[in-house]
Amino acid sequence: MSAAPDPVKLMKQQVGKAAAQRVNSNSIVGLGTGSTTAFAIQYLGERLQSGDLNNIKGIPTSFQASVLAKLHGIPLTTLDEVDRIHIAIDGADEVDPHKNLIKGGGAAHTREKVVDSLAEQFIVVVDQSKLVETLGSTFPVPVEVLPMAITPVMRALESLGGQPELRMGVKKDGPVITDQGNMVIDTKFGAIADPVALEKTLNNIPGVLENGIFVGVADLILIGELQNGEPFIREL
Amino acid sequence: MSAAPDPVKLMKQQVGKAAAQRVNSNSIVGLGTGSTTAFAIQYLGERLQSGDLNNIKGIPTSFQASVLAKLHGIPLTTLDEVDRIHIAIDGADEVDPHKNLIKGGGAAHTREKVVDSLAEQFIVVVDQSKLVETLGSTFPVPVEVLPMAITPVMRALESLGGQPELRMGVKKDGPVITDQGNMVIDTKFGAIADPVALEKTLNNIPGVLENGIFVGVADLILIGELQNGEPFIREL
Repeated sequence: MSAAPDPVKLMKQQVGKAAAQRVNSNSIVGLGTGSTTAFAIQYLGERLQSGDLNNIKGIPTSFQASVLAKLHGIPLTTLDEVDRIHIAIDGADEVDPHKNLIKGGGAAHTREKVVDSLAEQFIVVVDQSKLVETLGSTFPVPVEVLPMAITPVMRALESLGGQPELRMGVKKDGPVITDQGNMVIDTKFGAIADPVALEKTLNNIPGVLENGIFVGVADLILIGELQNGEPFIREL
Repeated sequence: MSAAPDPVKLMKQQVGKAAAQRVNSNSIVGLGTGSTTAFAIQYLGERLQSGDLNNIKGIPTSFQASVLAKLHGIPLTTLDEVDRIHIAIDGADEVDPHKNLIKGGGAAHTREKVVDSLAEQFIVVVDQSKLVETLGSTFPVPVEVLPMAITPVMRALESLGGQPELRMGVKKDGPVITDQGNMVIDTKFGAIADPVALEKTLNNIPGVLENGIFVGVADLILIGELQNGEPFIREL
Protein backbone atom coordinates (compact mmCIF):
# COMPACT_ATOMS: atom_id res chain seq x y z
CA MET A 1 0.00 0.00 0.00
CA SER A 2 2.45 2.66 -1.17
CA ALA A 3 1.28 5.96 -2.70
CA ALA A 4 2.35 6.83 -6.24
CA PRO A 5 5.48 9.00 -6.11
CA ASP A 6 4.74 12.73 -6.17
CA PRO A 7 6.08 13.98 -9.54
CA VAL A 8 7.09 17.40 -8.16
CA LYS A 9 9.04 15.80 -5.35
CA LEU A 10 10.63 13.41 -7.85
CA MET A 11 11.65 16.37 -10.00
CA LYS A 12 13.21 18.20 -7.05
CA GLN A 13 15.10 15.03 -6.15
CA GLN A 14 16.41 14.71 -9.70
CA VAL A 15 17.58 18.32 -9.80
CA GLY A 16 19.26 18.05 -6.40
CA LYS A 17 20.92 14.83 -7.52
CA ALA A 18 22.15 16.40 -10.77
CA ALA A 19 23.74 19.25 -8.82
CA ALA A 20 25.35 16.91 -6.29
CA GLN A 21 26.71 14.87 -9.19
CA ARG A 22 28.83 17.85 -10.24
CA VAL A 23 30.77 17.94 -6.97
CA ASN A 24 34.28 16.50 -7.18
CA SER A 25 36.35 14.80 -4.49
CA ASN A 26 38.72 16.97 -2.44
CA SER A 27 36.58 20.06 -2.60
CA ILE A 28 34.95 22.66 -0.37
CA VAL A 29 31.21 22.83 -1.02
CA GLY A 30 28.82 25.65 -0.14
CA LEU A 31 25.59 24.06 1.11
CA GLY A 32 22.49 26.10 0.36
CA THR A 33 19.09 26.27 1.97
CA GLY A 34 15.66 25.10 0.80
CA SER A 35 13.77 21.99 -0.24
CA THR A 36 15.58 21.24 -3.53
CA THR A 37 19.01 21.93 -2.06
CA ALA A 38 18.11 19.56 0.77
CA PHE A 39 18.01 16.73 -1.79
CA ALA A 40 21.43 17.78 -3.08
CA ILE A 41 22.82 17.59 0.46
CA GLN A 42 21.23 14.17 0.97
CA TYR A 43 22.73 12.86 -2.27
CA LEU A 44 26.17 14.27 -1.43
CA GLY A 45 25.98 12.24 1.77
CA GLU A 46 25.05 9.11 -0.20
CA ARG A 47 27.95 9.61 -2.59
CA LEU A 48 30.34 9.97 0.36
CA GLN A 49 28.97 6.82 2.00
CA SER A 50 29.21 4.77 -1.21
CA GLY A 51 32.80 5.87 -1.75
CA ASP A 52 31.89 7.55 -5.05
CA LEU A 53 33.06 10.84 -3.48
CA ASN A 54 35.88 11.51 -1.01
CA ASN A 55 37.17 14.27 1.20
CA ILE A 56 34.66 17.05 0.79
CA LYS A 57 33.85 19.64 3.41
CA GLY A 58 30.65 21.64 3.51
CA ILE A 59 30.12 25.28 4.44
CA PRO A 60 26.50 25.70 5.47
CA THR A 61 24.48 28.80 4.57
CA SER A 62 21.99 28.31 7.39
CA PHE A 63 21.10 26.37 10.48
CA GLN A 64 18.98 24.11 8.26
CA ALA A 65 21.91 23.31 5.94
CA SER A 66 24.12 22.61 8.94
CA VAL A 67 21.63 20.17 10.46
CA LEU A 68 21.07 18.36 7.15
CA ALA A 69 24.81 18.07 6.52
CA LYS A 70 25.34 16.48 9.92
CA LEU A 71 22.40 14.15 9.33
CA HIS A 72 23.85 12.95 6.03
CA GLY A 73 27.42 12.65 7.27
CA ILE A 74 29.00 15.59 5.45
CA PRO A 75 31.90 17.07 7.45
CA LEU A 76 31.57 20.81 7.94
CA THR A 77 34.07 23.63 8.01
CA THR A 78 33.91 27.42 8.23
CA LEU A 79 34.98 30.35 6.10
CA ASP A 80 37.84 30.93 8.55
CA GLU A 81 39.36 27.54 7.74
CA VAL A 82 39.41 27.65 3.95
CA ASP A 83 40.85 29.96 1.33
CA ARG A 84 38.38 29.02 -1.38
CA ILE A 85 34.99 27.44 -2.05
CA HIS A 86 35.09 25.22 -5.11
CA ILE A 87 31.38 24.84 -5.68
CA ALA A 88 28.14 25.95 -4.06
CA ILE A 89 24.63 24.56 -4.56
CA ASP A 90 21.63 26.64 -3.61
CA GLY A 91 18.04 27.35 -4.60
CA ALA A 92 16.38 30.57 -5.75
CA ASP A 93 12.94 32.19 -5.75
CA GLU A 94 13.32 33.87 -9.13
CA VAL A 95 15.82 33.38 -11.97
CA ASP A 96 16.04 35.72 -14.97
CA PRO A 97 17.56 34.89 -18.39
CA HIS A 98 20.88 36.50 -17.31
CA LYS A 99 21.09 34.08 -14.33
CA ASN A 100 20.35 36.87 -11.90
CA LEU A 101 18.37 35.76 -8.88
CA ILE A 102 16.02 36.76 -6.13
CA LYS A 103 16.61 34.67 -3.03
CA GLY A 104 15.51 34.83 0.58
CA GLY A 105 12.20 32.98 0.69
CA GLY A 106 13.78 30.94 3.47
CA ALA A 107 15.14 34.06 5.21
CA ALA A 108 18.71 32.80 4.71
CA HIS A 109 19.83 35.12 1.89
CA THR A 110 22.40 37.05 3.93
CA ARG A 111 24.54 34.01 4.74
CA GLU A 112 23.72 32.50 1.34
CA LYS A 113 25.11 35.58 -0.41
CA VAL A 114 28.31 35.38 1.64
CA VAL A 115 28.89 31.73 0.69
CA ASP A 116 27.46 31.64 -2.84
CA SER A 117 29.40 34.69 -4.01
CA LEU A 118 32.68 33.15 -2.85
CA ALA A 119 32.17 29.94 -4.80
CA GLU A 120 34.21 29.41 -7.95
CA GLN A 121 31.17 27.64 -9.40
CA PHE A 122 27.72 28.46 -8.08
CA ILE A 123 25.00 26.06 -9.23
CA VAL A 124 21.37 27.05 -8.72
CA VAL A 125 18.71 24.37 -8.45
CA VAL A 126 15.13 25.39 -9.22
CA ASP A 127 11.96 24.15 -10.83
CA GLN A 128 10.60 25.87 -13.92
CA SER A 129 8.07 27.93 -11.91
CA LYS A 130 10.98 30.13 -10.73
CA LEU A 131 11.90 31.37 -14.21
CA VAL A 132 10.94 34.98 -15.00
CA GLU A 133 11.72 37.41 -17.78
CA THR A 134 12.49 40.23 -15.33
CA LEU A 135 13.40 39.98 -11.64
CA GLY A 136 10.67 41.18 -9.29
CA SER A 137 7.86 40.04 -11.59
CA THR A 138 6.43 37.52 -9.16
CA PHE A 139 8.51 37.57 -5.98
CA PRO A 140 9.14 40.43 -3.56
CA VAL A 141 12.74 41.29 -2.64
CA PRO A 142 13.57 40.04 0.86
CA VAL A 143 15.53 42.61 2.88
CA GLU A 144 17.15 41.58 6.18
CA VAL A 145 16.97 44.44 8.69
CA LEU A 146 18.09 45.12 12.26
CA PRO A 147 14.99 45.01 14.48
CA MET A 148 15.55 48.58 15.79
CA ALA A 149 15.43 49.96 12.25
CA ILE A 150 12.31 48.22 10.92
CA THR A 151 10.07 51.30 10.78
CA PRO A 152 12.48 53.76 9.10
CA VAL A 153 13.67 51.09 6.66
CA MET A 154 10.05 50.37 5.67
CA ARG A 155 9.62 54.10 4.97
CA ALA A 156 12.84 54.19 2.96
CA LEU A 157 11.67 51.19 0.89
CA GLU A 158 8.36 52.95 0.21
CA SER A 159 10.16 56.07 -0.90
CA LEU A 160 12.07 53.90 -3.40
CA GLY A 161 8.74 52.81 -4.89
CA GLY A 162 8.49 49.49 -3.08
CA GLN A 163 5.61 47.95 -1.17
CA PRO A 164 7.27 46.65 1.99
CA GLU A 165 5.72 44.04 4.25
CA LEU A 166 7.27 42.68 7.43
CA ARG A 167 7.48 38.90 7.08
CA MET A 168 5.34 37.29 9.76
CA GLY A 169 6.05 33.95 11.37
CA VAL A 170 4.13 30.73 10.91
CA LYS A 171 4.25 28.49 13.97
CA LYS A 172 5.74 31.61 15.60
CA ASP A 173 3.78 34.64 16.76
CA GLY A 174 5.07 37.96 15.49
CA PRO A 175 7.71 38.44 12.81
CA VAL A 176 10.05 35.83 11.39
CA ILE A 177 13.46 36.05 13.08
CA THR A 178 16.47 35.09 10.96
CA ASP A 179 19.33 32.82 12.03
CA GLN A 180 21.21 36.08 12.83
CA GLY A 181 18.39 37.44 15.05
CA ASN A 182 17.07 40.03 12.59
CA MET A 183 13.82 40.53 10.64
CA VAL A 184 12.89 40.35 6.96
CA ILE A 185 10.93 42.93 4.98
CA ASP A 186 9.51 41.49 1.76
CA THR A 187 9.32 44.34 -0.73
CA LYS A 188 7.37 44.27 -3.97
CA PHE A 189 8.99 46.45 -6.61
CA GLY A 190 7.31 44.92 -9.66
CA ALA A 191 9.64 44.30 -12.60
CA ILE A 192 13.10 45.58 -11.62
CA ALA A 193 14.67 47.54 -14.48
CA ASP A 194 18.16 47.82 -12.96
CA PRO A 195 18.86 45.04 -10.42
CA VAL A 196 22.55 46.03 -10.10
CA ALA A 197 21.64 49.51 -8.91
CA LEU A 198 18.76 48.37 -6.70
CA GLU A 199 20.94 45.79 -4.94
CA LYS A 200 23.43 48.53 -3.99
CA THR A 201 20.81 51.10 -3.09
CA LEU A 202 19.03 48.70 -0.75
CA ASN A 203 22.28 47.67 0.95
CA ASN A 204 23.11 51.32 1.57
CA ILE A 205 19.94 52.01 3.59
CA PRO A 206 21.07 52.30 7.23
CA GLY A 207 19.82 49.28 9.17
CA VAL A 208 19.80 46.92 6.16
CA LEU A 209 22.10 43.88 6.36
CA GLU A 210 21.56 42.37 2.96
CA ASN A 211 18.90 42.01 0.28
CA GLY A 212 17.91 39.04 -1.84
CA ILE A 213 19.03 40.34 -5.25
CA PHE A 214 21.95 38.21 -6.52
CA VAL A 215 23.48 39.74 -9.64
CA GLY A 216 26.33 38.04 -11.50
CA VAL A 217 26.77 35.33 -8.89
CA ALA A 218 25.23 32.21 -10.49
CA ASP A 219 27.22 30.21 -13.04
CA LEU A 220 24.80 27.44 -13.93
CA ILE A 221 21.06 27.02 -13.42
CA LEU A 222 19.65 23.49 -13.27
CA ILE A 223 15.94 23.69 -14.00
CA GLY A 224 13.61 20.86 -13.14
CA GLU A 225 10.67 20.47 -15.49
CA LEU A 226 7.84 18.01 -15.82
CA GLN A 227 7.32 16.75 -19.38
CA ASN A 228 4.33 14.44 -19.74
CA GLY A 229 4.51 13.89 -16.01
CA GLU A 230 8.18 12.86 -16.19
CA PRO A 231 10.98 14.84 -14.50
CA PHE A 232 13.42 16.43 -16.92
CA ILE A 233 16.42 18.69 -16.28
CA ARG A 234 17.35 21.65 -18.40
CA GLU A 235 20.47 23.81 -18.08
CA LEU A 236 20.76 27.58 -18.34
CA MET B 1 42.85 70.06 47.76
CA SER B 2 41.14 69.93 44.34
CA ALA B 3 43.05 69.34 41.12
CA ALA B 4 43.01 72.03 38.46
CA PRO B 5 40.29 71.22 35.91
CA ASP B 6 41.53 69.25 32.90
CA PRO B 7 41.29 71.67 29.92
CA VAL B 8 40.48 68.92 27.41
CA LYS B 9 37.66 67.63 29.58
CA LEU B 10 36.44 71.21 30.05
CA MET B 11 36.44 71.67 26.28
CA LYS B 12 34.47 68.46 25.69
CA GLN B 13 31.97 69.60 28.32
CA GLN B 14 31.58 72.96 26.60
CA VAL B 15 31.01 71.38 23.19
CA GLY B 16 28.51 68.91 24.59
CA LYS B 17 26.71 71.73 26.36
CA ALA B 18 26.62 73.87 23.22
CA ALA B 19 25.01 71.02 21.31
CA ALA B 20 22.48 70.29 24.06
CA GLN B 21 21.61 73.99 24.09
CA ARG B 22 20.30 73.67 20.53
CA VAL B 23 17.63 71.15 21.48
CA ASN B 24 14.10 72.59 21.71
CA SER B 25 11.20 71.47 23.88
CA ASN B 26 8.72 69.00 22.38
CA SER B 27 11.26 67.24 20.25
CA ILE B 28 12.62 63.79 19.49
CA VAL B 29 16.39 63.68 20.02
CA GLY B 30 18.86 61.15 18.63
CA LEU B 31 21.40 60.41 21.37
CA GLY B 32 24.85 59.55 20.09
CA THR B 33 27.71 57.59 21.57
CA GLY B 34 31.11 58.66 22.89
CA SER B 35 32.73 60.85 25.52
CA THR B 36 31.74 64.28 24.16
CA THR B 37 28.19 63.20 23.39
CA ALA B 38 27.98 61.88 26.94
CA PHE B 39 28.32 65.47 28.18
CA ALA B 40 25.53 66.54 25.81
CA ILE B 41 23.27 63.85 27.27
CA GLN B 42 24.17 64.93 30.80
CA TYR B 43 23.37 68.55 30.01
CA LEU B 44 20.07 67.64 28.34
CA GLY B 45 19.13 65.94 31.61
CA GLU B 46 20.07 69.06 33.58
CA ARG B 47 17.97 71.26 31.29
CA LEU B 48 15.01 68.94 31.77
CA GLN B 49 15.44 68.96 35.53
CA SER B 50 15.72 72.75 35.72
CA GLY B 51 12.58 73.20 33.64
CA ASP B 52 14.53 74.98 30.89
CA LEU B 53 13.51 72.14 28.55
CA ASN B 54 10.27 70.15 28.42
CA ASN B 55 8.88 67.07 26.77
CA ILE B 56 11.79 65.62 24.87
CA LYS B 57 12.26 61.96 24.10
CA GLY B 58 15.58 60.38 23.26
CA ILE B 59 16.39 57.66 20.76
CA PRO B 60 19.66 56.01 21.80
CA THR B 61 22.27 54.90 19.27
CA SER B 62 23.86 52.40 21.63
CA PHE B 63 23.63 50.65 24.95
CA GLN B 64 25.89 53.36 26.38
CA ALA B 65 23.57 56.17 25.22
CA SER B 66 20.58 54.32 26.65
CA VAL B 67 22.23 53.89 30.06
CA LEU B 68 23.33 57.54 30.20
CA ALA B 69 19.88 58.79 29.18
CA LYS B 70 18.27 56.79 31.97
CA LEU B 71 20.90 58.03 34.44
CA HIS B 72 20.18 61.66 33.53
CA GLY B 73 16.40 61.30 33.46
CA ILE B 74 15.80 61.56 29.72
CA PRO B 75 12.73 59.55 28.66
CA LEU B 76 13.45 57.18 25.80
CA THR B 77 11.45 56.05 22.81
CA THR B 78 12.11 53.91 19.74
CA LEU B 79 12.06 54.38 15.99
CA ASP B 80 8.79 52.43 15.91
CA GLU B 81 7.04 55.09 18.00
CA VAL B 82 7.99 58.26 16.15
CA ASP B 83 7.62 59.50 12.60
CA ARG B 84 10.55 61.91 12.77
CA ILE B 85 13.72 62.77 14.66
CA HIS B 86 14.09 66.52 15.09
CA ILE B 87 17.72 66.62 16.08
CA ALA B 88 20.55 64.21 16.72
CA ILE B 89 23.84 64.82 18.55
CA ASP B 90 26.76 62.52 17.99
CA GLY B 91 30.56 62.44 17.85
CA ALA B 92 32.92 61.53 15.01
CA ASP B 93 36.44 60.20 14.53
CA GLU B 94 37.18 62.27 11.43
CA VAL B 95 35.45 65.29 9.88
CA ASP B 96 36.35 66.66 6.45
CA PRO B 97 35.64 70.22 5.17
CA HIS B 98 32.43 68.97 3.48
CA LYS B 99 31.11 67.72 6.84
CA ASN B 100 31.62 64.12 5.80
CA LEU B 101 32.58 61.84 8.65
CA ILE B 102 34.26 58.65 9.69
CA LYS B 103 32.59 57.18 12.75
CA GLY B 104 32.74 53.89 14.59
CA GLY B 105 35.61 54.24 17.05
CA GLY B 106 33.07 53.18 19.67
CA ALA B 107 31.81 50.31 17.49
CA ALA B 108 28.34 51.89 17.40
CA HIS B 109 28.33 53.25 13.85
CA THR B 110 25.64 50.93 12.51
CA ARG B 111 22.94 52.11 14.91
CA GLU B 112 24.37 55.64 14.80
CA LYS B 113 23.94 55.76 11.03
CA VAL B 114 20.33 54.60 11.34
CA VAL B 115 19.49 57.34 13.84
CA ASP B 116 21.73 60.17 12.64
CA SER B 117 20.63 59.90 9.02
CA LEU B 118 16.98 60.18 10.02
CA ALA B 119 17.49 63.41 11.98
CA GLU B 120 16.27 66.66 10.44
CA GLN B 121 19.28 68.32 12.04
CA PHE B 122 22.36 66.27 12.85
CA ILE B 123 24.92 68.06 15.02
CA VAL B 124 28.39 66.58 15.34
CA VAL B 125 30.46 67.33 18.43
CA VAL B 126 34.23 66.91 18.12
CA ASP B 127 37.49 68.42 19.23
CA GLN B 128 39.84 69.96 16.68
CA SER B 129 42.03 66.87 16.52
CA LYS B 130 39.28 65.17 14.46
CA LEU B 131 39.48 67.62 11.55
CA VAL B 132 41.12 66.31 8.36
CA GLU B 133 41.43 67.56 4.80
CA THR B 134 40.50 64.15 3.36
CA LEU B 135 38.64 61.28 5.05
CA GLY B 136 40.81 58.29 5.83
CA SER B 137 43.94 60.39 6.45
CA THR B 138 44.30 59.41 10.08
CA PHE B 139 41.52 57.00 10.99
CA PRO B 140 40.72 53.58 9.54
CA VAL B 141 37.18 52.90 8.32
CA PRO B 142 35.29 50.68 10.79
CA VAL B 143 33.30 47.96 9.05
CA GLU B 144 30.75 45.94 11.05
CA VAL B 145 30.67 42.33 9.86
CA LEU B 146 28.79 39.12 10.64
CA PRO B 147 31.18 36.83 12.57
CA MET B 148 30.86 33.98 10.03
CA ALA B 149 32.06 36.27 7.24
CA ILE B 150 35.13 37.82 8.89
CA THR B 151 37.75 36.03 6.79
CA PRO B 152 36.24 36.55 3.30
CA VAL B 153 35.34 40.16 4.12
CA MET B 154 38.93 40.83 5.19
CA ARG B 155 40.08 39.45 1.83
CA ALA B 156 37.54 41.59 -0.01
CA LEU B 157 38.75 44.68 1.86
CA GLU B 158 42.33 43.88 0.89
CA SER B 159 41.37 43.50 -2.75
CA LEU B 160 39.85 47.01 -2.54
CA GLY B 161 43.26 48.31 -1.46
CA GLY B 162 42.53 48.47 2.26
CA GLN B 163 44.58 47.20 5.20
CA PRO B 164 42.01 45.42 7.34
CA GLU B 165 42.51 44.62 10.99
CA LEU B 166 40.04 42.85 13.22
CA ARG B 167 39.36 45.11 16.22
CA MET B 168 40.49 43.35 19.39
CA GLY B 169 38.89 43.81 22.78
CA VAL B 170 40.37 45.57 25.77
CA LYS B 171 39.14 44.15 29.08
CA LYS B 172 37.77 41.39 26.81
CA ASP B 173 39.80 38.58 25.29
CA GLY B 174 39.38 38.13 21.56
CA PRO B 175 37.62 40.55 19.23
CA VAL B 176 35.35 43.43 20.18
CA ILE B 177 31.70 42.38 19.90
CA THR B 178 29.20 45.09 18.95
CA ASP B 179 25.87 45.77 20.65
CA GLN B 180 24.35 43.71 17.78
CA GLY B 181 26.66 40.73 18.37
CA ASN B 182 28.94 41.29 15.39
CA MET B 183 32.61 42.20 14.88
CA VAL B 184 34.43 45.27 13.56
CA ILE B 185 37.19 45.33 10.95
CA ASP B 186 39.16 48.59 11.03
CA THR B 187 40.39 49.21 7.51
CA LYS B 188 43.07 51.71 6.55
CA PHE B 189 42.52 53.08 3.06
CA GLY B 190 44.69 56.19 3.37
CA ALA B 191 43.12 59.34 1.91
CA ILE B 192 39.75 58.37 0.41
CA ALA B 193 39.25 60.02 -2.99
CA ASP B 194 35.56 59.14 -3.40
CA PRO B 195 33.85 58.49 -0.05
CA VAL B 196 30.38 58.26 -1.67
CA ALA B 197 31.47 55.34 -3.84
CA LEU B 198 33.50 53.62 -1.11
CA GLU B 199 30.57 53.77 1.34
CA LYS B 200 28.35 51.93 -1.16
CA THR B 201 31.01 49.48 -2.27
CA LEU B 202 31.76 48.45 1.32
CA ASN B 203 28.07 48.02 2.16
CA ASN B 204 27.65 45.75 -0.86
CA ILE B 205 30.27 43.22 0.31
CA PRO B 206 28.30 40.16 1.47
CA GLY B 207 28.54 39.88 5.25
CA VAL B 208 29.00 43.62 5.86
CA LEU B 209 26.30 45.34 7.93
CA GLU B 210 27.48 48.92 7.76
CA ASN B 211 30.63 50.98 7.51
CA GLY B 212 31.69 54.15 9.28
CA ILE B 213 31.69 56.53 6.29
CA PHE B 214 28.91 59.12 6.77
CA VAL B 215 28.48 61.23 3.63
CA GLY B 216 25.98 64.09 3.48
CA VAL B 217 24.49 63.32 6.87
CA ALA B 218 25.91 66.02 9.16
CA ASP B 219 24.36 69.50 9.16
CA LEU B 220 26.51 71.31 11.72
CA ILE B 221 29.88 70.54 13.26
CA LEU B 222 30.67 71.98 16.68
CA ILE B 223 34.43 71.96 17.12
CA GLY B 224 36.01 72.34 20.50
CA GLU B 225 39.37 74.08 20.50
CA LEU B 226 41.82 75.21 23.13
CA GLN B 227 43.03 78.76 22.67
CA ASN B 228 45.63 79.81 25.24
CA GLY B 229 44.43 76.93 27.35
CA GLU B 230 40.82 78.16 27.26
CA PRO B 231 38.00 76.15 25.64
CA PHE B 232 36.52 77.76 22.56
CA ILE B 233 33.82 76.50 20.18
CA ARG B 234 33.91 76.95 16.45
CA GLU B 235 31.16 76.02 13.95
CA LEU B 236 31.50 74.37 10.57
